[in-house]
Amino acid sequence: MSETDFVLDPRLAADTHPVTSLPLCDVLLMNDARYPWLILVPRRAGMIEIADLDAGEQAELWQEVNRASAALCAVAPSGKLNLGALGNIVRQLHIHLVARHAGDAAWPGPVWGHGHAQHYDDVEWKQLIESLRAAIGPTGPHP
Amino acid sequence: MSETDFVLDPRLAADTHPVTSLPLCDVLLMNDARYPWLILVPRRAGMIEIADLDAGEQAELWQEVNRASAALCAVAPSGKLNLGALGNIVRQLHIHLVARHAGDAAWPGPVWGHGHAQHYDDVEWKQLIESLRAAIGPTGPHP
Repeated sequence: MSETDFVLDPRLAADTHPVTSLPLCDVLLMNDARYPWLILVPRRAGMIEIADLDAGEQAELWQEVNRASAALCAVAPSGKLNLGALGNIVRQLHIHLVARHAGDAAWPGPVWGHGHAQHYDDVEWKQLIESLRAAIGPTGPHP
Repeated sequence: MSETDFVLDPRLAADTHPVTSLPLCDVLLMNDARYPWLILVPRRAGMIEIADLDAGEQAELWQEVNRASAALCAVAPSGKLNLGALGNIVRQLHIHLVARHAGDAAWPGPVWGHGHAQHYDDVEWKQLIESLRAAIGPTGPHP
């Protein structure tokens, strides 16, 4: 299905602030100050599993995951990056990138389903998004 | 670092049965009958993050993840595949592929850190590994 049919799941929209759009994925900041946490959502309607993307889109996805990971680690140095694609609750395909460190709220367990989000204040998330945008760099034209 | 320096982390070895070796990764079956669960471990010493692999290895990793995912879904049809690369406890780079379904032991939460593994009996894991090997198919020469 084409990009024009894509609509971001309203639960992902409600839980995040938009950071930028890469050629395939929208990059979102999870509104949870406990962990620096990005979500990448391919702008392709009807995708649930990674294997639903075609080979070229998958290659682009992993390039964008790398690029977002590098930016996240530059802005929020962490002891360990966690990558996850679960979709048990929100089925729209989305990839989590979470900067973890020993002693964080869920350490060493996974962040998903652990406790409740602590929202950023307006100054915090705007600053963090500015830093992330600068680290991700120019996004180029969409395909 | 080269493949010759690679040694599987003893905690991964203790928790799994070996399924097969793909060109980059060893494929392991988690010894937990609650969920059909594969772990892919690139045979490269010293790797912690996916970004530690070079570009060619990363491309191979995602091809092997796709191949193992397809085999897992063929052998154990599931409502949702969960993919994770955490490494908070065992730092050696490894990718989890877990076949989930509504109502499983941890649903809809993540499997990592949830309860205790229920081990397969000897007949069960040998049959499952045979089925997985058949679904994965010939592994070809290692690079």
